[in-house]
Amino acid sequence: MARPSLKENIVAAALDTLHRQGFNATGVQDITDAAGVPKGSFYNHFESKEDLGIEVIERYWQRALTHLGMLNDANVPPIVRLKSYFRSLDEISRKNKYQRGCLIGNMATEMSDQSRPIRERLAIVMAAWTRGIESCVREAQADGSMRRDIDAKMIASFLLNAWEGTAMRTKVDKDRTALEAFEKVVFTSLTQ
Amino acid sequence: MARPSLKENIVAAALDTLHRQGFNATGVQDITDAAGVPKGSFYNHFESKEDLGIEVIERYWQRALTHLGMLNDANVPPIVRLKSYFRSLDEISRKNKYQRGCLIGNMATEMSDQSRPIRERLAIVMAAWTRGIESCVREAQADGSMRRDIDAKMIASFLLNAWEGTAMRTKVDKDRTALEAFEKVVFTSLTQ
Repeated sequence: MARPSLKENIVAAALDTLHRQGFNATGVQDITDAAGVPKGSFYNHFESKEDLGIEVIERYWQRALTHLGMLNDANVPPIVRLKSYFRSLDEISRKNKYQRGCLIGNMATEMSDQSRPIRERLAIVMAAWTRGIESCVREAQADGSMRRDIDAKMIASFLLNAWEGTAMRTKVDKDRTALEAFEKVVFTSLTQ
Repeated sequence: MARPSLKENIVAAALDTLHRQGFNATGVQDITDAAGVPKGSFYNHFESKEDLGIEVIERYWQRALTHLGMLNDANVPPIVRLKSYFRSLDEISRKNKYQRGCLIGNMATEMSDQSRPIRERLAIVMAAWTRGIESCVREAQADGSMRRDIDAKMIASFLLNAWEGTAMRTKVDKDRTALEAFEKVVFTSLTQ
């Protein structure tokens, strides 16, 4: 097996550190310390912390995209897939003791007005995430399990945004209350 | 009219600066510069930036609470009040050019895992905000305009969280799409 590159070590350490502490609370030194590499090596691989931030978003998104794949499982009814998907995100929150939240949401909140390149990358990622949910919503509307009087794209966008707000609230309350409200309201009011 | 105190100047400047830049991107010096006061005077009034952060949350919440008062207007049907309330938040987003977002949500995302006193204050504020929405939801359920098969408290908590996620998404997209999805989905699926 190839030895992980120095760059790879930095990205992995940054993914963890930025997720835990946020972008502005984390210095380049914190990241290189966590990666166990000399601070000087950072700028051989990244132009700036912002540049690394974009790489970290991309890495996190690739994982999220793999997870999103469960929404395509044709062996499971689409409404069940949607419920399982949000339950699995809920499970991740629980395992993380309601800390960290979603890196995409965290970066969106903290960096949208501070970095145009980060904001633009987040817009692309969130649009792709919305499309992933939308195709499953469309299937659920087609088989009659989800209401059809609201456009699938609007429902998908709303679900992602409501989920992000739920993840945020969970960080504050440190319990399942917000997650329970999400599941109950969404799967009562949007199904039929 | 009494001259605003030095402390008051610092809180007002911090409210603006922390809302624009976030907590960790803002130094005490940025705040005292914005307030036009010497940096040394800061620690005569606040133990720490965290201490000021709590004061800023309180100040922002007092404003939000006044605004929330429109949900009690007995001259307007409760479902119309709810719609007008979220529309008015939407209007504030638009005026701010979809920048800044909600200070409560921003602090929740950035600081919940970094500061226990800030997180505890946010939990109190978000619980009070939820109760303000809940009483109007309860009235709308009583007059038959909102569905009754979901507990009013759950609906209220969900609405606040979904709104926060919507505000977050709006910061990324810099347009009304997320706000439109919120209004359409909520006022189609929760009303009857």
